[in-house]
Amino acid sequence: MSEKLDIIVVGAGVFGLASAYHLQKKNPSKKILLIDRLADAGQANTAMSAAAVRNTFSSRTNQILTDTTIDFYIDVQENLKFDLDLQLVGYLWLLTEKQLADPLNKKWMEKMDANKIKYELYEGENLKRKLPELSMKVSDNEEARIMNLEDIKAGLFGVKCGILDPSKLVSFYKNEFARISKVKPMFNTEVEELILEPPNKLGVPGEPFIWQDPSVVGVKTADGEIRGDTVVMAAGTWVNKLTDPTGIDGRVKVKKRQLFRVSTEGSQSLKSILNVKSFNKFNSLPFTVLPRGVYLRPVRQEESFWVGCADKLNRPFKYVQTEDDWKSEQNYFEQSMYPVLSAYLPAFKDVRPASGWAGAYAYSYDAVPYVYKEAGMIFATGDSGSGIMKADAVGRMVDALYRGEKTTTLHGGVKIDTGTLSIGNRKVEKEEVLI
Amino acid sequence: MSEKLDIIVVGAGVFGLASAYHLQKKNPSKKILLIDRLADAGQANTAMSAAAVRNTFSSRTNQILTDTTIDFYIDVQENLKFDLDLQLVGYLWLLTEKQLADPLNKKWMEKMDANKIKYELYEGENLKRKLPELSMKVSDNEEARIMNLEDIKAGLFGVKCGILDPSKLVSFYKNEFARISKVKPMFNTEVEELILEPPNKLGVPGEPFIWQDPSVVGVKTADGEIRGDTVVMAAGTWVNKLTDPTGIDGRVKVKKRQLFRVSTEGSQSLKSILNVKSFNKFNSLPFTVLPRGVYLRPVRQEESFWVGCADKLNRPFKYVQTEDDWKSEQNYFEQSMYPVLSAYLPAFKDVRPASGWAGAYAYSYDAVPYVYKEAGMIFATGDSGSGIMKADAVGRMVDALYRGEKTTTLHGGVKIDTGTLSIGNRKVEKEEVLI
Repeated sequence: MSEKLDIIVVGAGVFGLASAYHLQKKNPSKKILLIDRLADAGQANTAMSAAAVRNTFSSRTNQILTDTTIDFYIDVQENLKFDLDLQLVGYLWLLTEKQLADPLNKKWMEKMDANKIKYELYEGENLKRKLPELSMKVSDNEEARIMNLEDIKAGLFGVKCGILDPSKLVSFYKNEFARISKVKPMFNTEVEELILEPPNKLGVPGEPFIWQDPSVVGVKTADGEIRGDTVVMAAGTWVNKLTDPTGIDGRVKVKKRQLFRVSTEGSQSLKSILNVKSFNKFNSLPFTVLPRGVYLRPVRQEESFWVGCADKLNRPFKYVQTEDDWKSEQNYFEQSMYPVLSAYLPAFKDVRPASGWAGAYAYSYDAVPYVYKEAGMIFATGDSGSGIMKADAVGRMVDALYRGEKTTTLHGGVKIDTGTLSIGNRKVEKEEVLI
Repeated sequence: MSEKLDIIVVGAGVFGLASAYHLQKKNPSKKILLIDRLADAGQANTAMSAAAVRNTFSSRTNQILTDTTIDFYIDVQENLKFDLDLQLVGYLWLLTEKQLADPLNKKWMEKMDANKIKYELYEGENLKRKLPELSMKVSDNEEARIMNLEDIKAGLFGVKCGILDPSKLVSFYKNEFARISKVKPMFNTEVEELILEPPNKLGVPGEPFIWQDPSVVGVKTADGEIRGDTVVMAAGTWVNKLTDPTGIDGRVKVKKRQLFRVSTEGSQSLKSILNVKSFNKFNSLPFTVLPRGVYLRPVRQEESFWVGCADKLNRPFKYVQTEDDWKSEQNYFEQSMYPVLSAYLPAFKDVRPASGWAGAYAYSYDAVPYVYKEAGMIFATGDSGSGIMKADAVGRMVDALYRGEKTTTLHGGVKIDTGTLSIGNRKVEKEEVLI
């Protein structure tokens, strides 16, 4: 790079893309480079995602981030006519009596009520009518009893929720950014290190010393150094690897997440579940969450479900994502997910996945993203597995922080304090509704 | 271990010791095992510490934790007649004009005022008279100018602050615990893994599965398994190593910290600094913090200073403490600390340390400790470099959490919500005054 850049966005996942797009839109004269180690944008964890969207969080901040982001995607698809394959099929949580009585879940519903997040509660027979293939009563099933599975009492249905095609969303941001950007993105270029430098460098080994005031002034790649006034750190599960050597805390923890594709082929019952007519105009199963966190994501163009589960205990936290995190584990499906799935939805009995894949979540400590500035670098990290549904709001907050605006205007004119997702003055509640 | 334990405290550093002591005191019938990989208690980072105490934090929570802990240590020494070598020599921050004007420091002073944390401000000539060896004006010094060092304008003196002997504090807690405990502590015994198990174990490989409800039921050591109803996790900088494989976030980040011993031998000026009469009844230099974070800890029985610095940028964050973190770096003293030290205190000119050592801090994300329960385990971690001065309060909170008390009574009858240091309902301000 011969000329100096204004902004370098590290990572072309959905947070990096949305940041680059909104930065360029609001700072048209700035030279913004988007850089990623893979061959194209959105090829890492963004591509591995279940690609669902929901505004049904417990934390007010997450509600705002997702609600405005979903509204933006609706706008992109309906008004800008850019197809994202966004289908608001809804989210359906199937809840046991214990879950309904759990104070955390009660608080969740109260917070959705208070903030006008739309949901419906289908109880008992009402739920059974909507989803006849569901075994609500499992307590008379011997295997289910051994597993401590409990009867389902109700379904909580989130309305402004659904699914989209992540590759189309990536294309939208990538193309829109390319249209207005002055700098060609660099792919196949891994950022190996951050350059931490004081303003008046002495050229002595060991710099920067404690009496200097260094900041991040660029990145090192295999092809050489690239310098820019501001680095936007959107490296997801690899952020610690880049920031921690500089003494800046990357502040995410990484956990592997898997998805398995189960085809409906040859099973009328599975087809009935996938194409159930009672929930939405798409005649599609909503994104459905069973007790114990096993979830089904409808993929009707493939006549399939993606089955996932955000396992908590016994699934290690890591510092950075490793090669192992790209491999799905058939055993995990068989031993952990399958017994739950087939107990509540007997149509899945003896069904096995045709394929599986894996990625990882970059958890923040409260499962709300980070947007803050440190050592000259703007962080857009900690998506905590819900990056796609928060990306547009995060991108706008990155831009506002860059421009020094105290308030960020999100899609639809919703205002949020630009410091909300910061570290020093972080004022967010820990998210309690994770999947 | 043939009989089942009630509590296993992992780590005999100061958090583990204070927890074991307060747990045993309030639960006299319980069998409590203290376990550590080293040959005795307090031999790792507790022993490497600068062993200073101060109540002059910016966060209200840290103020309460330290103020009551210091009061307890005063009580131990004065009333229980157990010598801790506690000397309230004070803490002296030497501040530049820029530091005095910094909104964060203004807020710090306001918060100390509001909460009756006693400090004094010595300005200009007043400070110079108290510490004549101090070069307050460095702006006419060529080297200092290259380093961007600024003139000192004032000294902020924390009153209920000072130093103690960490080995004596460790002895106090260890002996008092031994006196009332029913179980002999195990030293030289490394906890290699936590045992995560469901209540109704099936004996199938891969357990626990997602439909089980596992919790931590004990620890694995080279000599076999040890089981207990509650595990107290006080492993400091090694907590991630133990907890993360189970899927529980260890939630600390680790950073190396060094101390260098500089003798006053042969220098009348250095002796005058060490034995300065104007600050306290001990005729001792207070624990003194120079601009850029270089600090001096008086060690009068060794006729020495310990010189340290909590370097931030360019000092890597780590996941767990490694072997490297036990080695001090002569270069770090020479290039980073010495230039600052000798600029403000020219008596240090050409002086080099006789020895050095290193340990590591286990930072929490807001530099306030963690006390919370997760998967059946109680965490007492995230001391963030101020474990000694918070230990007694943390130990009492661990006990209150164990007994299910909503409110913890700290030394002196001060009440604090037992959930204050938790994750889910954490209501603490990020600490801004770190050294």
